[in-house]
Amino acid sequence: MQFELTKEYLEAVKTALETGENISVLEQINDLHPADIAEIFDELNSEEAEKFYRYLDGEIASDVLIELEEDVREKFLKTLDPAEIAERFIDNMDSDDAADIMAELSDEKKDNVISLIKDAEQASDIVDLLNYDEDSAGGLMAKELIKVEVDWTIPRCIKEMRKQAEDINNVYTIYVVDSKDKLIGTLSLKKLLLAPAKSKIADLYDENVHWVKAYEDAESVANIMDKYDLVVLPVIDELNRLIGRITIDDVVDVIKEEADKDYQLASGISESVDSSDSAFILTRARLPWLLVGMLGGIFGSLIINQYEDQLQIHPEMALFIPLIAATGGNVGVQSSAIIVQGLANKSLGFDGIFARLSKEFLIALMNGLVCSSIIFLYTFMVKDNISLAITVCLAMNVVIVFAGLFGTFIPLMLNKYNIDPALATGPFITTTNDVVGLLIYFGIGHFMYIML
Amino acid sequence: MQFELTKEYLEAVKTALETGENISVLEQINDLHPADIAEIFDELNSEEAEKFYRYLDGEIASDVLIELEEDVREKFLKTLDPAEIAERFIDNMDSDDAADIMAELSDEKKDNVISLIKDAEQASDIVDLLNYDEDSAGGLMAKELIKVEVDWTIPRCIKEMRKQAEDINNVYTIYVVDSKDKLIGTLSLKKLLLAPAKSKIADLYDENVHWVKAYEDAESVANIMDKYDLVVLPVIDELNRLIGRITIDDVVDVIKEEADKDYQLASGISESVDSSDSAFILTRARLPWLLVGMLGGIFGSLIINQYEDQLQIHPEMALFIPLIAATGGNVGVQSSAIIVQGLANKSLGFDGIFARLSKEFLIALMNGLVCSSIIFLYTFMVKDNISLAITVCLAMNVVIVFAGLFGTFIPLMLNKYNIDPALATGPFITTTNDVVGLLIYFGIGHFMYIML
Repeated sequence: MQFELTKEYLEAVKTALETGENISVLEQINDLHPADIAEIFDELNSEEAEKFYRYLDGEIASDVLIELEEDVREKFLKTLDPAEIAERFIDNMDSDDAADIMAELSDEKKDNVISLIKDAEQASDIVDLLNYDEDSAGGLMAKELIKVEVDWTIPRCIKEMRKQAEDINNVYTIYVVDSKDKLIGTLSLKKLLLAPAKSKIADLYDENVHWVKAYEDAESVANIMDKYDLVVLPVIDELNRLIGRITIDDVVDVIKEEADKDYQLASGISESVDSSDSAFILTRARLPWLLVGMLGGIFGSLIINQYEDQLQIHPEMALFIPLIAATGGNVGVQSSAIIVQGLANKSLGFDGIFARLSKEFLIALMNGLVCSSIIFLYTFMVKDNISLAITVCLAMNVVIVFAGLFGTFIPLMLNKYNIDPALATGPFITTTNDVVGLLIYFGIGHFMYIML
Repeated sequence: MQFELTKEYLEAVKTALETGENISVLEQINDLHPADIAEIFDELNSEEAEKFYRYLDGEIASDVLIELEEDVREKFLKTLDPAEIAERFIDNMDSDDAADIMAELSDEKKDNVISLIKDAEQASDIVDLLNYDEDSAGGLMAKELIKVEVDWTIPRCIKEMRKQAEDINNVYTIYVVDSKDKLIGTLSLKKLLLAPAKSKIADLYDENVHWVKAYEDAESVANIMDKYDLVVLPVIDELNRLIGRITIDDVVDVIKEEADKDYQLASGISESVDSSDSAFILTRARLPWLLVGMLGGIFGSLIINQYEDQLQIHPEMALFIPLIAATGGNVGVQSSAIIVQGLANKSLGFDGIFARLSKEFLIALMNGLVCSSIIFLYTFMVKDNISLAITVCLAMNVVIVFAGLFGTFIPLMLNKYNIDPALATGPFITTTNDVVGLLIYFGIGHFMYIML
């Protein structure tokens, strides 16, 4: 069962929707996996989507809705009235998915939908979940889980599980609680399945259980599940009572979003965007960095302005302006990226800031030595100008060391004060290094031409 | 059960290892989760590590070994002889972990270890797995799985599972095969647990099963598991026979590595490094981009050299060299990052290259309009020089459009020819745009000063 959406298949769907001919392709659509149906749905315009949705069977429609791209889903939900959303979708969903989708509705529509949910328990679960911050363990968890009390027998346990399991698609772990609903361990299905019928939960369960508190942030959840290779993680409240569970698929999304966010920040994109967003949104996400870069460029022009007389006498100084600026930017991006990634992967260890800076100093010296030797030879041989050669060579070294130390220091500092260190990667580091690089270059040049 | 490694705890461990006093901290070490023990191990030097390892209980030692950082593990394994590796580690491990660790040994040591594995099945599984490319489905899979034949009864099924399950820590899914070992479906533990005893596998199993062929690459595996929210994915051979299964924890690692790799490429780091690597390795990973950037800087100097006479008459042209170069670089990084991410997330849809370029053209025009208006006003008002103002404004627009289109085109082209589009992000795009930006700026400047 492998499906790949082709252009031809998509065309066939679109034609069937438009003309009403060859609709067998639409009638067979429910045989596909909801994630595949969602892939088709994402490519349709609003008019097509409205028709398409009528062909989806009951629960499949809600599974498809969860898998849609966020902007497609938002647009689609606007075309539906609250009763339809409540009955066709929310009633059929896991509480975590339902809450995620409710959070995308306007406040008024949200209240309307909640009042129309038929299953009272589902409605109350959703209201509970909506209280949590989207990026916290509570915001990621689902309420559906299987729990058994520690003093039950196996037959009682299986009987209770039969009741509880109805609502749950995948049972990975059975949670064991005490009489006050406090989480005290887990029971694997394997053990339950393979145990003699007379055993008691108390003899079978495993006391070693990882958990998170509901208020912990999504990134910590991802780190714990990744570190301990967990597929599901229970969530407890302040009284250690079991209130939900987080599954790995939601955490994979968190990991991908975190990585995407860092990548975009490093690339100078200031809000979370997707290549399919409108040109206007993409422009809005890109303009801020360009403006920061422009501010840097204007500062740069002010510095060069100071040395305009010198440039008139020694126009060859202009030759290496791009080189010096680019090198500062490059070194800054490299060193900050390594720190940002080290912080994200928690692989920096216990080295203090001083140890980090010393190491970066060493790296910068080595890189600086190689680069400045090459540029010295080039300048000396091609331009036959020893003052310029020494200036460029010295400036190159100083810029590489400064940019390396600055790129290391800033993300470490931001992290210390609980600011996202990835903010330091793109615009801030390169622009600062561009400007400082020019100051260093002309400063040294000024001195050299007076001296030699 | 939450553990956080503190500096004090680490110091206590190190002191106990060195002095042999207060060794209770070492005797209790086995109570920790292997991933936590590995975190401590990662911070020890070789001498400490060798002593520390003696305190680890049998199977725990092998669980810890898997969790170590790669370079720490490699160093540690060098201190052990083949017999110890085979007996204390490989014999206790899942086949996929064992194969991963074997792949890190030298060829000679690997052969030695294999000949010393006591469990013949384990040895043959490892040899099998070592044949697969590390970055393929076969390289990610483990051989341990639970499979039942479709015509078995439930009691027979449970009896066989009891045998098979001994080797397996987590049972998520039971695979159903036909008499020729072909994968035909899955059986959930939940269904098995809740079914009446008289049912047959044939009545209970689910025919809809996702799978991968052994030669498919790790990235496709990650995409399938992410798309369909799978926790485990079966691997089949060319004859559709079930040969292994991949679990989500290994795929999370693939996703993280892919993201790290793209992030590093975009930051101009040319090999996969970690902040804890040696200064020499970090220098080696960073130098290539700096050299590419330097080559770009030298090209830039050649272009400026062509216009040296013009600079002597109009030294104010030098003022905006850094601005033009930086803007070209920034726009190129932004547009290529959006394409690279869209390709990685498969969210580019069916738009052709022409549609992409048209959209980028529109975005570039909007960004260009804002940036060039600001710089025009600044130059005109501050420098009171209309030729310069028009030059900078025009050049800014042309550079932004060129850099945007170039940054969009190159990764799309690379992808078309099956080259990793992330290669286009860092050095290549910025350096080219720096150089082309200068050509555009001086070209326009030359023309403007002649004209006005």
